[in-house]
Amino acid sequence: MALAEMEKVLRNDEGIRLVLDLLRQRYGERLVTGHSVREQHAHSTSYIPPQLPDAVFAPRTVEEVQEVVRMCAEHRVPVIPFGTGSSLEGHVNAPGGGISLDLMNMNRILSVNAEDLDCTVEPGVTREDLNHYLRDTGLFFPIDPGANASLGGMASTRASGTNAVRYGTMRDNVVNLQAVMPDGRLITTARRARKTSAGYDLTRLLVGAEGTLGVITALTLKLYGIPQAISGGVCPFPDVETACQAVITTIQMGVPVARIEFVNALAMKAINAYSDLSYPESPCLFVEFHGSDAGVKEQAETFGEIAEEFGGGPFQWTSVAEERTRLWKARHNAYWACVALRPGTRGLSTDVCVPISRLAECIVETEADIAREGLMATVLGHVGDGNFHVLVLMDMEDPKEIEQAEAFVARLNKRALAMDGTCTGEHGIGQGKMRFLEEELGDAVDVMRAVKEAIDPLNIMNPGKIVGARRI
Amino acid sequence: MALAEMEKVLRNDEGIRLVLDLLRQRYGERLVTGHSVREQHAHSTSYIPPQLPDAVFAPRTVEEVQEVVRMCAEHRVPVIPFGTGSSLEGHVNAPGGGISLDLMNMNRILSVNAEDLDCTVEPGVTREDLNHYLRDTGLFFPIDPGANASLGGMASTRASGTNAVRYGTMRDNVVNLQAVMPDGRLITTARRARKTSAGYDLTRLLVGAEGTLGVITALTLKLYGIPQAISGGVCPFPDVETACQAVITTIQMGVPVARIEFVNALAMKAINAYSDLSYPESPCLFVEFHGSDAGVKEQAETFGEIAEEFGGGPFQWTSVAEERTRLWKARHNAYWACVALRPGTRGLSTDVCVPISRLAECIVETEADIAREGLMATVLGHVGDGNFHVLVLMDMEDPKEIEQAEAFVARLNKRALAMDGTCTGEHGIGQGKMRFLEEELGDAVDVMRAVKEAIDPLNIMNPGKIVGARRI
Repeated sequence: MALAEMEKVLRNDEGIRLVLDLLRQRYGERLVTGHSVREQHAHSTSYIPPQLPDAVFAPRTVEEVQEVVRMCAEHRVPVIPFGTGSSLEGHVNAPGGGISLDLMNMNRILSVNAEDLDCTVEPGVTREDLNHYLRDTGLFFPIDPGANASLGGMASTRASGTNAVRYGTMRDNVVNLQAVMPDGRLITTARRARKTSAGYDLTRLLVGAEGTLGVITALTLKLYGIPQAISGGVCPFPDVETACQAVITTIQMGVPVARIEFVNALAMKAINAYSDLSYPESPCLFVEFHGSDAGVKEQAETFGEIAEEFGGGPFQWTSVAEERTRLWKARHNAYWACVALRPGTRGLSTDVCVPISRLAECIVETEADIAREGLMATVLGHVGDGNFHVLVLMDMEDPKEIEQAEAFVARLNKRALAMDGTCTGEHGIGQGKMRFLEEELGDAVDVMRAVKEAIDPLNIMNPGKIVGARRI
Repeated sequence: MALAEMEKVLRNDEGIRLVLDLLRQRYGERLVTGHSVREQHAHSTSYIPPQLPDAVFAPRTVEEVQEVVRMCAEHRVPVIPFGTGSSLEGHVNAPGGGISLDLMNMNRILSVNAEDLDCTVEPGVTREDLNHYLRDTGLFFPIDPGANASLGGMASTRASGTNAVRYGTMRDNVVNLQAVMPDGRLITTARRARKTSAGYDLTRLLVGAEGTLGVITALTLKLYGIPQAISGGVCPFPDVETACQAVITTIQMGVPVARIEFVNALAMKAINAYSDLSYPESPCLFVEFHGSDAGVKEQAETFGEIAEEFGGGPFQWTSVAEERTRLWKARHNAYWACVALRPGTRGLSTDVCVPISRLAECIVETEADIAREGLMATVLGHVGDGNFHVLVLMDMEDPKEIEQAEAFVARLNKRALAMDGTCTGEHGIGQGKMRFLEEELGDAVDVMRAVKEAIDPLNIMNPGKIVGARRI
C-alpha cells in the first residue's frame, strides 16, 4: 500500500553526496552515518518497512538547524525532523534518503511563566522532563500520549492521549511555535497572548504537519495548576454498549472528567495477568476526576450513579495517590500487557476516532471483525473523545499474518469513515494512512497539497508523508 | 494608514461589468445594486471609510455560492463574504469593488446531534437563532461576542467574547467547515469526530481567515450542556492592579470561572448612569461560575476570598437568574452606556491581548495615555484571557479627533506588542490592523501570504484584508 506512495520520492544521490561532504567538513564526527544509528532513526512500530536516512545530525542551536535546512534546500536533499521516534505511522522514515535531524540536543526549558500558566521549551524536551522540571511550581503539562515523547514531536503529530477529554490535544495547548521554514527562515507563529485573531493560524497549521512544513525549534505551551484533589477508579460494564452509553451521559451532563478510558475484555485479561491484578474481565472504564476535594467526590459519585443506571459497576474509586498510581500504571502498561498475550509477536497499534454516538457500534463491529478473522487483538480507547486503538499482535515472520492485519486495518478505517469519523484521532497520517486521508477528505487534500507546495516548493521537508510526493 | 493598503487592490471595471450582467441575467432582481443596500454592506464601525461593493447577492444554496464564485474567478472580480456586518476592522469593505455575498438566506440549522454535543448549521444562522432553536434540548452554544453575529462570520473572524476563558474561542469550537474555495470547489475540512490528526488543520486555517481563503457554507459546532447552576456577581477593587492580581490568582488556582470581565471606573460610571444602577464607580470584575449547585457556591466563595486577599470586595453574588440577567445586561449594554457619556459621538472599539502577567501594566499605561491625551475612552476586558477593549468616543466631524484616536490606537498596539501581546485578541485584522500584523509577526506574514497565494492565486476572495494585496 504505502509503498506505492513512498516510491514517488525520488532519491537525489548527487545532492545527498554533496550535503554529506559539506556537513562532514563543517561538523566532523557530529555527522553520524553508522548503520545502527541510521536504523534507530528509521524505525517504525507499524508493519511499514524502515527506510534509512543517509545520516543523522543533532543540531544544538537554531542557527545550526537553519544552516542544515539551507544546505539541504540548495541541494534538494530531504530533511526529516526527529524527536524520540515514538510515532507510529512511518513518520520518521526516509523514503528518499536525506538527513534525519535529531532534535534531542535542543532540550532546554527556555522559560516558565507561572503567572501566565505557560512555558517555552526547545523541541527536544520530553513531556516527562518538563513535568519533572515543573514539580516545585504547582504546575503541570497534562498531554500524555503514553510514550515519553518529545514536545516538538508531540506538536508535530498533534498528539493527545488519556486526558485530552479534559485538557484538549496539542492543538489546544500550543500557544505559539518558532520554526525554521524550508527556505531556512526562522518564523514565530504568534505572540504569547492566550488568544489572538491576528491573521492565519500558522500555529495550528504547523501543529500536526508532521515536520512536512518546517522544523519546530521552540514551543510555548499552556500549563495547568496541579489539581487540589484527584479521584479515580475502575468500573466494569456488562458490555461495550453500556460502557459507551455511560461515557456519553457523563459527558452530556457536563461532568468534567479528566480521563475516561475504555479497556475491552481481552485487554483487561492481559492487564490482570501482566500486573498481577484481579479486575473483572469484562469491558471496563478507567476514570479520573480533577478538582477540589468536594468536587472530585461529587464527580466520582455522579459517575458511579450513571454507571449503575446502565447496569455497570460497582465503581470502586479512591483519592489515595498510591492506589491511583497503581491503576494508571496498569493502564499505561496495557501495551506490554497485551503484547505478552502472544509472546514473540509484535503489536501493530492503529487508531481511529468517531462521533461518540457511533462509538459502541464501531467497537462492537471491530470486535466481531477480530473474532471472525481469528486475530489476536485488543481494544483500548480514549472514549471521551470517541477515539480508540486496536493493538493487533502479529508474527512478523509470517507475511500472511501481516497481510491479514493490513486488511483488518483497512476495514477498520473504512468503518470509521462510514460513521463520519476520522482515520486517525491522534497517531497522524505519516506514510501508513495516506490512502485513508484521501478517502476521508477528498478535494480538501488537494488544498493541503497546495499549502505544502507553497511553503515547501522543493519538497525537502519530510517528503512522502501526509500529502505524498505527487505533482512535485 | 490602511488606505495605502487598500489602494493596492486594483479595480477591474470590465470584469465587474461582465459579472453584473451575467448575474442579472441569471438572478434578475435578486442581484441588488441600490446604493443604500450596498452601503449597508460596506459599513464599518471603525474610522475606516466605507468602500461599497458593486452589488449584493444573497445565495440560497451552496450551488449558488459556487456559481457566483466561479463566475467571479473567471472574470477576476472580488467576492466579499458577508454575515451580519458586525465586524469592526473594515472586514466587509470592498476596496476593489465586486460582489458582497450576503449569507443571510443560508440560515438553516442542518442537524443537532445531542449525543455528540454538536450541531451543523449554515453560515447565516446567528448565535441567538441557534440558542433559541436549542432551548428545549438542554444544550447551548456558548461563544458570545456581544453582537448577534452570524456563526459563519464568527468563525471567519475567530470571534470569542465574555466566556472564552471557560469555553474557548471559535478556534476551539468549530469541529469542521464546509467551504467553497476560490476556484469554486466545495471542500469539507474534517469529519465529525471530536479529535483528529488527519493532515493539515484546514479547519483552523479557515477559522480566522476573514473570508480571504474561501466562503464558509456550513459549520459543525461544539455544544455544551446548560449548567445545572450558575452564580455570578460584581466585585469592586481599589485599582486596576489588584483587580488583575485577583484574576491571575483565580485562574492559577484552577477555579473554572465562566466569565471574568474587567470594567474600568469610567465605564462603571457610564453603566450606572445608563442602566440606573448603583455599583461602586471603581475598577470592577463581573464574574460568573457554571457548575453544580455545590460547585458554583464553592467557586463564588473561593473567588470572594481571593478578591478580599487583594483588598477587593465586597463580592456580592447570586444564583438567582433574574439578578444575574440584570447584571449581564448591564455589561452587554456597556457599549451604548459608554457612547452615552458623550452624546453625538461615535465609539471606536479596538482590542488587544497580552499575557495576563502584563495586563495590569498594559491597562494602567493605557489609562494614563487616555488621560494625557484628554480622550474620552473606557476600558472593558475579557481579562481571564488578557484581552481588553478600549472604546474611544470620537466626534466624527472633527478630523483632528479622528487623527488623535488613530494615533492612540497605534500606541496601544505598540504597547501590547512590546509586552509580547497581539494587536487583536478577537476583532481580527481586516483592513485596520494590517500594519500591526506585520509588526507583530514579521516574516510569518510572508508565510501567510504564500498560503493566500496558493489557495487564492487570483486574489478574488475578500482582497485587501489581512495580508493585503502585495505581490499579487
